Amino acid sequence: MPGRGIFFEIQVFLQTLAMIHAIEMINNSTLLSGITLGYEIYDTCAEVTKAMGAAVRFLSKFNASKDEVEFKCNYSDYTPRVKAVIGASYSEVTMSVSRLLNLQLIPQVSQASSSEILSDKIRFPSFLRTVPSDLYQTRAMARLIHMSGWNWIGIIATDDDYGRFALESFGIQAMANNVCIAYKEMLPAFLSDSTINAKVNQAFEKIIEETRVNVIVVFMRQFHVMRLFQKAIERNINKVWIASDNWSAAVKVSMIPYIKRLGTVVGFAFKSGNISTFHDFLKTLHAKPMENNKFLNEYMLLLSACAHVKDQELNNCISNCTQESLMYKAGENNQTLKDDFLIANIEPGFIHSTMLAVQTIAYAIREQCQDRNCKNPFAFAPWELLEKLKKVKITDSEKEVHFDAKGDMNTGYDVLLWKEINGQIEITNMAEYDLQKDDFIFPDEEKKTDFFNLKKFWSKCSQECRPGQMKKVTASPHTCCYECVYCPENHYSNQTDMDHCYLCNNKTHWSPVNSTRCHKKTVQYLNWNDWFAVLLLILSGLGVVLIVMISTIFTRYLDTPVVKASEADIFRSKWVAY
Amino acid sequence: MPGRGIFFEIQVFLQTLAMIHAIEMINNSTLLSGITLGYEIYDTCAEVTKAMGAAVRFLSKFNASKDEVEFKCNYSDYTPRVKAVIGASYSEVTMSVSRLLNLQLIPQVSQASSSEILSDKIRFPSFLRTVPSDLYQTRAMARLIHMSGWNWIGIIATDDDYGRFALESFGIQAMANNVCIAYKEMLPAFLSDSTINAKVNQAFEKIIEETRVNVIVVFMRQFHVMRLFQKAIERNINKVWIASDNWSAAVKVSMIPYIKRLGTVVGFAFKSGNISTFHDFLKTLHAKPMENNKFLNEYMLLLSACAHVKDQELNNCISNCTQESLMYKAGENNQTLKDDFLIANIEPGFIHSTMLAVQTIAYAIREQCQDRNCKNPFAFAPWELLEKLKKVKITDSEKEVHFDAKGDMNTGYDVLLWKEINGQIEITNMAEYDLQKDDFIFPDEEKKTDFFNLKKFWSKCSQECRPGQMKKVTASPHTCCYECVYCPENHYSNQTDMDHCYLCNNKTHWSPVNSTRCHKKTVQYLNWNDWFAVLLLILSGLGVVLIVMISTIFTRYLDTPVVKASEADIFRSKWVAY
Repeated sequence: MPGRGIFFEIQVFLQTLAMIHAIEMINNSTLLSGITLGYEIYDTCAEVTKAMGAAVRFLSKFNASKDEVEFKCNYSDYTPRVKAVIGASYSEVTMSVSRLLNLQLIPQVSQASSSEILSDKIRFPSFLRTVPSDLYQTRAMARLIHMSGWNWIGIIATDDDYGRFALESFGIQAMANNVCIAYKEMLPAFLSDSTINAKVNQAFEKIIEETRVNVIVVFMRQFHVMRLFQKAIERNINKVWIASDNWSAAVKVSMIPYIKRLGTVVGFAFKSGNISTFHDFLKTLHAKPMENNKFLNEYMLLLSACAHVKDQELNNCISNCTQESLMYKAGENNQTLKDDFLIANIEPGFIHSTMLAVQTIAYAIREQCQDRNCKNPFAFAPWELLEKLKKVKITDSEKEVHFDAKGDMNTGYDVLLWKEINGQIEITNMAEYDLQKDDFIFPDEEKKTDFFNLKKFWSKCSQECRPGQMKKVTASPHTCCYECVYCPENHYSNQTDMDHCYLCNNKTHWSPVNSTRCHKKTVQYLNWNDWFAVLLLILSGLGVVLIVMISTIFTRYLDTPVVKASEADIFRSKWVAY
Repeated sequence: MPGRGIFFEIQVFLQTLAMIHAIEMINNSTLLSGITLGYEIYDTCAEVTKAMGAAVRFLSKFNASKDEVEFKCNYSDYTPRVKAVIGASYSEVTMSVSRLLNLQLIPQVSQASSSEILSDKIRFPSFLRTVPSDLYQTRAMARLIHMSGWNWIGIIATDDDYGRFALESFGIQAMANNVCIAYKEMLPAFLSDSTINAKVNQAFEKIIEETRVNVIVVFMRQFHVMRLFQKAIERNINKVWIASDNWSAAVKVSMIPYIKRLGTVVGFAFKSGNISTFHDFLKTLHAKPMENNKFLNEYMLLLSACAHVKDQELNNCISNCTQESLMYKAGENNQTLKDDFLIANIEPGFIHSTMLAVQTIAYAIREQCQDRNCKNPFAFAPWELLEKLKKVKITDSEKEVHFDAKGDMNTGYDVLLWKEINGQIEITNMAEYDLQKDDFIFPDEEKKTDFFNLKKFWSKCSQECRPGQMKKVTASPHTCCYECVYCPENHYSNQTDMDHCYLCNNKTHWSPVNSTRCHKKTVQYLNWNDWFAVLLLILSGLGVVLIVMISTIFTRYLDTPVVKASEADIFRSKWVAY
């Protein structure tokens, strides 16, 4: 399935090799005694129409002279060319193919399509997958964001079924975690879309304009991420990038020159398992027959064409190699397959899920063939295999795995951190996300520190309101954006980010503006030692003494003619007035 | 395409009749001199898988002994069974079928699928439609809601591609119009979904709980609306319902007993045109040969089975008739086709768009056949017809119509009001929505009054804040929800719903709590006529008179021995004190 139409995708090439490896392992084992699994691999080029063409071929009649699909009202006694289909990677392609395979209920197991809607068994009755639904991934992302104290983030997604469903699901999870989405940018899924450059520029303008957003969630196809990041480096953008499963482990992206200037990348990848047998397979790849493997032939051609470049630039050269240069170089042949280069490009989650897909089908066939002779191609119909497949249980890394009621395999996620080690970006495992417990599990203390160090990045719309303040509405339509104002008199707030200030009990308490608590009202007495009190006492004492003096003199001389003559009554009333 | 699997849909039956009528009109005219259009009609039962089966048949080889689709890498010299496809109705079905028809670029013209994504010509290169994209419908709805002064509304949608895209699009338009969405309820698309009852009940709980929401936008399939409304009437729910195109003109829904208790229904329907010829066609339907028309036969069987019910209940009876009762009644035959019943059930927008679809194809064929002999079925390939179809221009109701660059026909919408006339609900035309001008056009003043009467319904999260108040954040995550608080002292607000109060100029102005303006600070003088001033004057005058009197008496008798004897100095100092 490498995207041959446009460029050669090493990662998808590796997935096809993993598929071949897993099938060979089954065929070399005694699991299906006497039965050999055959296979055909088609390149969808990430295009629905190409994939539909291949799907029509899958539906065509077994062993007929021509590849023809017969139109029937009832397909129960019709034997198609294939018994089961593995793929596709992109959810949008997977959905369309699944709609067609439904006609004959041919089991389809995807190793990478994670859109939530594919869990809907009314719409996709014959679909299963060896990865979890995006529902869990978006939940895990929202949790990581919340735990790191961010609430103002951006999203960039590819405008296809995968991106749209992921966006919807993430929106719900973000809301549940009080995380606001500052902007959502959708980039066209196809490079042939004429608006793609304008949309990419628009996304950049948003990113530059919204300086408070320092965390961006990216649900994109790898080749989109490549384009975006190359431009982002040119524009000196430095952020925290949250990577979704389909590019979180992309070695090609991590090898972009100056990628470390971009900031920090934290990613979610499907949980990987033991894939050491695949490493061995790659090391012995040159010894395998390769006449029938067109993808391998193409890879060899590309290696010849890129023989002149250094190892670090090989990835880039292979991606950018045009069909013409291939034709030109077709004559030369280079016998080394650079297995170290292939091993370095492995994204373990996808290899693991691809091998699981093959294994589940093999085990289901074994179940199916216990009571019949499966050497006869008509021994069972695809829909019978589907029923067995739904119930199959296999052992992976000492754990039993199986499809749940919705046909998903809830293996969990690895949380990846792109870390600079010796000047090179390496994709390291930081934690594991447990779906059932909705929690992160750390292998050691160092990783845990890495995880909690993410808190040092700031991505909030508003500064926290301190105690003594409260939030105030602004013109922004987001609840994460607000201003802080002081609590008015007789009000207080005692926590950060409070919606409103509490009122003090008016009778007994009071508080000034910007208070974190109320104060008790007290009756104030003048102190005996206060100079003002002393002055008051002296003055009023002097007044009393004067009056007493005068009244004593008058009273004593009351009977003398002088006092009598001086209109005593008038003066008496005068004293009272005094 | 009536939903035979579950029940008979009169409306979809009428669409098939409209298609037949339009084709017959073309064949009876001289438009395609010498060429006769043939057709096959399939019932998708609203199921993707059924539709895919039919689509496989469309792709099969022309005139082959068996209906077989050949798998080819290049279909350019392959002649399929059909030259063009009309349909489907449901967007989800249309999309899947379109993905398959893309293989051979067979032109597909839908008469009802309005999802925005179908405008994407990279994904759906061979798709066209005779209706506008939902982008315009959601914009028109948001505008109506905004104009009616509502900002707190609910949405109920079917959980399929149609509902999801509509929801997304409406969300964007609502935000642009400052309308908040209180709840979004998605109901499963299939009655076979086991969660459907729980989801319907959950929706009702939301509706009942959120008493401030009085306007609900409904993007649902007709049979969902039927179920929802029957229950809503039982629960005494009374709201304003905004109907999307696919049920806004559903006579069946408007005939639900006690439907008027539900409240008001305002709907958007595809703009209709002159369909009088179709009325005539229905009236002469009984005279047509009907051996090949399975749908017509089924309708006649249903009429026989429901012969005992009253005309008002016919719709209900036909919908609920099971396959068993049909078998039982098959012997009887009733020769009347109840064309009045059929005419009453017409949803003109759909009939019009169906006839347009046939006409555009016919005109494209005429273009195509100007320079070649089209009696030979191999004269042109479907992809050639597609190119002509994109450029075709036809005249409809004296206006030229054509597909735009995205393959949509921007005919506009009729705004419908379900009105009680003589005790019966009738679906009336209230206005027309012009896509280009983003505006409503009213045929007369009465309709305009009806439209602006919608304002009397209240659907807001919060009461308006009066001048003198300002908005305050609440715990709600919606910006339409807030509390109002008084402006504090020395602040004011002079408009409704202000985000914050303005500060008065502290030096020159002041205001009390809850002010709509600032007051100028003034120096206050006591008025000469004020009683308090008069009292003060009298008292102080009296004091002056007394002192003058006493001092006069003392001064006059200063030389008398009495005064001298009475320690004059003391008393003099007393006066001064006084």
